[in-house]
Amino acid sequence: MIDTPYLSLDVARLDRNIHGVAGHAQTAGLDLRPHAKTHKCAEIARRQLAAGAVGLTVATIGEAEAFATASPVRADLFIAYPLWVSGDKGRRLRALAAHTRLRLAVDSAEGARQLAAEIGHADVDVVVEVDSGQHRTGVVPQEAGGVASAAVDAGLRVIGVFTFPGHGYGPGDAPRRAAEQEVTALSVAAEQLRAVGVEPVVRSGGSTPTIEFAESGVLTEIRPGVYPLNDAQQIELGSCGFAEVALSAIATVVHRTGMRAVVDAGSKILGADRPPWTSGFGRVLDAPDATITSLSEHHAVIEFPSDTASTALPAPGDRLRVIPNHVCTAVNLVDELIAETPDGTTARWPVVARGANS
Amino acid sequence: MIDTPYLSLDVARLDRNIHGVAGHAQTAGLDLRPHAKTHKCAEIARRQLAAGAVGLTVATIGEAEAFATASPVRADLFIAYPLWVSGDKGRRLRALAAHTRLRLAVDSAEGARQLAAEIGHADVDVVVEVDSGQHRTGVVPQEAGGVASAAVDAGLRVIGVFTFPGHGYGPGDAPRRAAEQEVTALSVAAEQLRAVGVEPVVRSGGSTPTIEFAESGVLTEIRPGVYPLNDAQQIELGSCGFAEVALSAIATVVHRTGMRAVVDAGSKILGADRPPWTSGFGRVLDAPDATITSLSEHHAVIEFPSDTASTALPAPGDRLRVIPNHVCTAVNLVDELIAETPDGTTARWPVVARGANS
Repeated sequence: MIDTPYLSLDVARLDRNIHGVAGHAQTAGLDLRPHAKTHKCAEIARRQLAAGAVGLTVATIGEAEAFATASPVRADLFIAYPLWVSGDKGRRLRALAAHTRLRLAVDSAEGARQLAAEIGHADVDVVVEVDSGQHRTGVVPQEAGGVASAAVDAGLRVIGVFTFPGHGYGPGDAPRRAAEQEVTALSVAAEQLRAVGVEPVVRSGGSTPTIEFAESGVLTEIRPGVYPLNDAQQIELGSCGFAEVALSAIATVVHRTGMRAVVDAGSKILGADRPPWTSGFGRVLDAPDATITSLSEHHAVIEFPSDTASTALPAPGDRLRVIPNHVCTAVNLVDELIAETPDGTTARWPVVARGANS
Repeated sequence: MIDTPYLSLDVARLDRNIHGVAGHAQTAGLDLRPHAKTHKCAEIARRQLAAGAVGLTVATIGEAEAFATASPVRADLFIAYPLWVSGDKGRRLRALAAHTRLRLAVDSAEGARQLAAEIGHADVDVVVEVDSGQHRTGVVPQEAGGVASAAVDAGLRVIGVFTFPGHGYGPGDAPRRAAEQEVTALSVAAEQLRAVGVEPVVRSGGSTPTIEFAESGVLTEIRPGVYPLNDAQQIELGSCGFAEVALSAIATVVHRTGMRAVVDAGSKILGADRPPWTSGFGRVLDAPDATITSLSEHHAVIEFPSDTASTALPAPGDRLRVIPNHVCTAVNLVDELIAETPDGTTARWPVVARGANS
């Protein structure tokens, strides 16, 4: 019996989730390039690639280094982030490009020139990041041509455009509306590239909440991250049900008063993400009606509905499975996942890209 | 030049903060037992002990193991958490107690009996956790005597009571009111122990926001955690100013549109804590008037006031110092802090208790 708290991975559910989205992408005629920042595990990446993913998406050079090292074959990696390449980052990218099929991102003319100056003649593809409505990074679609031109002029090989419809993380109609804006933004940006003589072969978007709306045409590729594991955010968005959640924190009840139970999993293993549209700081897999009303570093306070029978309330010492709101940040808090396979065996899967922030 | 993002520690400010609170505790006649979950660094603990701290507080057995291993002398550690001792935890506590002065916590009769059964005759002190208003763990003060009796009957050596006034983390008058409730709760609980024949030698409380209200009498000891480093929450509570913040994330500006700048430090190095009374997801040390309006895993979106001169706005490639809302969770995301000393040298201080959740 492993001491709590720890992150437990249900491998049967993981495989179902991986194959479900792989099948959807294939049917839709879309390349699937999963975002590996979610799981940061070589073994999960291997299963995604075996199920048909064309490569991986990562967020940092450090994550790319981790997956390039862990991969038994030549990796195909997209760092979907408008890096500002300074310090040691140019050398690190050149080293990666020597052994990895590498795709990089720019969202400004000065960023493109800086990238070109730092990586020299390294063999990389470049795509232009477009803002489809999240208002984070990315150039407005109408200016994508200018960025592409600057990149080409600096000597970079530009092959397309991408966006992240992160504003689809919201209640009600938000995912569908974000998916529509994504298509519009990529369409405008693609035209912009053609107008400056660059063929936008890659038109990449997608996220877990918008998977169901993705179709080929404007889009050629999707980059969902969360779907192999799922989390409480996806439950509350309606993107998955409790039975599709493959990762949870195993926690011990350390206190109970009335309808309140406290477990030993807090923000240092669940993460502290708490969007305003969520019901609380995560969900309890074994008690879908319970609410996690507060989270400290080593405590989650769980309130059970007032009509819960006393025999249905957990007692100190009981173990509960707690679903983090945001699985990407939870996985990043541990060195390994405890993988539980259908035949009852348990393995430790290293989180090879944990903390690879730079 | 170290690649961004990374956590930078200003050692001069650290030392000022450590000595400031040590002096306050000494003047007030209170034992200072800092909570090491904040920094998880052996070197910071060493400086706190050298400045007069009587021992350390930790949150988990794993943290206690890390500090017991890292400490050059016999450690004096308080695991301020109502552990439910199962699995391997009994063996681990016995191993710790053999080499460490160890204080443990209970908040229920069944927890006390479980602890006693699992640790056998190990040499540990025990204190009763009391709920002073946060409504997390801890027994109500009026029932502390019953828990103490059960612990004594189970063979444990009970030496006092403790509480954490976590509800002092709030705007306006919240810290002062929480400090008053803390004194009342500990006073009632101490009387309860005396009534069952247990002398409450230790009456422990305190947190960083309530330090200024702590005085000896009912209280014998305080356990603040955040004060050596400080963070954006403490700024917004008025517990410190920008000049007292010793830890920040060094981040590179990767994008700017109008008054919006985006840096490469996100929730995977800052943590995602966002209490409703904070102004945003952290603060910018170099721009106190700016607001961090959203945080993704690898992006912080910073909005500058609309009247900011364009020459005062950061450009892509500039580095900014970002203060996390909650420093305890930020430190837990990295393997080492980059310690910058007044003489210009830089050292790497390992975060020895990172991820020690169980």
